Amino acid sequence: MALEDGPVVAVDCNGADLGPSEVAAGAALAAAQGARVVLFGPARELGTPPPGVQVVDAPVSIAKAPDPVRAVRSTPEASIVQAATAVAAGEAQALVCAGSTGSALAAGILNVKRASGIFRPALALPLPVPSHPVTLLDVGANADARREHLVQFAFMGAALAQAVLGVARPRVALLSNGNEPDRGSALVLETHAELAERIPGSDFFEFVGNVEGVDLVSGAADVIVTDGFTGNIALKVMEGVSQATLSAIRSAAATSPVAQAGGLLLRPALRGFREEIDPERQGGAYLLGLRRLGIVAHGRFTRQGFAQAILRARLGATEDLVGRTHAALEQAGALKVSPASVARATVAGR
Amino acid sequence: MALEDGPVVAVDCNGADLGPSEVAAGAALAAAQGARVVLFGPARELGTPPPGVQVVDAPVSIAKAPDPVRAVRSTPEASIVQAATAVAAGEAQALVCAGSTGSALAAGILNVKRASGIFRPALALPLPVPSHPVTLLDVGANADARREHLVQFAFMGAALAQAVLGVARPRVALLSNGNEPDRGSALVLETHAELAERIPGSDFFEFVGNVEGVDLVSGAADVIVTDGFTGNIALKVMEGVSQATLSAIRSAAATSPVAQAGGLLLRPALRGFREEIDPERQGGAYLLGLRRLGIVAHGRFTRQGFAQAILRARLGATEDLVGRTHAALEQAGALKVSPASVARATVAGR
Repeated sequence: MALEDGPVVAVDCNGADLGPSEVAAGAALAAAQGARVVLFGPARELGTPPPGVQVVDAPVSIAKAPDPVRAVRSTPEASIVQAATAVAAGEAQALVCAGSTGSALAAGILNVKRASGIFRPALALPLPVPSHPVTLLDVGANADARREHLVQFAFMGAALAQAVLGVARPRVALLSNGNEPDRGSALVLETHAELAERIPGSDFFEFVGNVEGVDLVSGAADVIVTDGFTGNIALKVMEGVSQATLSAIRSAAATSPVAQAGGLLLRPALRGFREEIDPERQGGAYLLGLRRLGIVAHGRFTRQGFAQAILRARLGATEDLVGRTHAALEQAGALKVSPASVARATVAGR
Repeated sequence: MALEDGPVVAVDCNGADLGPSEVAAGAALAAAQGARVVLFGPARELGTPPPGVQVVDAPVSIAKAPDPVRAVRSTPEASIVQAATAVAAGEAQALVCAGSTGSALAAGILNVKRASGIFRPALALPLPVPSHPVTLLDVGANADARREHLVQFAFMGAALAQAVLGVARPRVALLSNGNEPDRGSALVLETHAELAERIPGSDFFEFVGNVEGVDLVSGAADVIVTDGFTGNIALKVMEGVSQATLSAIRSAAATSPVAQAGGLLLRPALRGFREEIDPERQGGAYLLGLRRLGIVAHGRFTRQGFAQAILRARLGATEDLVGRTHAALEQAGALKVSPASVARATVAGR
């Protein structure tokens, strides 16, 4: 397909709980809205592709591989590796993976590769919080982080919010154990100082300082930055607590006929809430910091979620998310400096 | 009061949202169950003490002080400082504070002082999770932690679970971004190795490895150990998400007469759930690692919560929580070694 017809999204169909055919059905929905897609998966399960969709037969899956990095390195025929390689070669402009975060991360880093000047990629997740959408990153690409990584995450998350999520000037915050600027781990204190000094007056995003765990649902920020260890824990606590609360209410509603009647009467009113917290609406987790945008849809998604992931990936390519991120980091002087230029600067007495 | 009549609990009455009289009412409830209490607060607001309760007039409060450490140092007449000093002097065997975590921490560390061989105190919170109680520590005493701190936290939390919370052989876990032993921050990986090697065969607690954020509500462990930065964030996410979920359901139940009727019918069935997640049942957060047990009740508590805090503090003293912790740490070789003995060991070629 020619690029002048708009970006092409490469999609790995292996790894979805409902099977590769559900991902293909999602691609068909996205294609009906004008998306152009190349599917990598078992051709015999993907059916006849509609206009706008191509199929590359790639039946080998590494979605369940225990060591994704080794699997990506040793399995060039795997669907995710072929999809990532197509993106790296410029045959597609964005990557969508239908299941395993581990293999998507590994294929992204090893095949698509980091964008120039980026220290570390990050996984950003727009949280399905009713009336207060907020994007949390990193939710688990790197367990440990340094100050310069978190500073870049702030720019990467802000660019995503601007280019793909429709927030004109995102409010960016650091996740901490207190709102005050002097509260936090050593890492947060350093990063806070850097963002507070570097950013004022920037029209790229507004740094709103530290936020607490409760601010994942309070609407205090559009983008919340943290290391992948803390971000993963915060996310899993959020998922666990919301599921446990809903299931406790469901059990309570089963304890007596009166309560059952109450639950039935309440159900239609809860539909809007359930829709708002539906993770499929956000398309999945965004793999930022690579040469091209990647999206990791959740393995549990239905075709609607996969269609949304593909449409969001296309939007990221159309809006040049990667280029915007680079330009903003460059302007702020926050790109990774190569060892050679550090040496020159040191010699110059900096 | 004489010690042979059982331990005495020193209680700081300042800082409660409902005022010092509510704390005094809680003390009266606890005294009716045999507790012996000394209240520190404004005597004219505390009423006539019932048998078992003494009052020390201490009207000065530093519960709202912006810099608790400085306030504790410069305000010896403050109620929390007087209460902590009474504990340090052996006039009382446990400390309960009715409000500010910051001033309780500062007075605990500066006046009650760290127990011998303890690196850092920690704040442990039994989480009100229906049918799966779990104690999380540290929830915010120290933003940064080292491996040897987390190892001690494991013992401190296990001792609390045994002595005060009624868990015979607690399952202790490390909070991480994955269940696998090789997942985690550098700090978690080091601590995991230490606990996995040091502890097998111990009958003090069972180390069950890493748990994820969702395991705060899954029942996978009785005690979950983490640094104070991560613990505080996990706790605040938990509070925020459960409140947001309940309030979203409450709003949904207000959208139409039918939904309202459903909410009304469901309400009685939800009473048990609301009671199970009531934080007053746990008495508050436990300040561990000092020469005596401290409990920080929440400022929002009613008299029932303050009574529970006093009864739990008494139990901690009766069951010798501090002595048990020390003995277990000593047996495991996990006590802090003084610089002098390190020097001797080094000279001996260790």
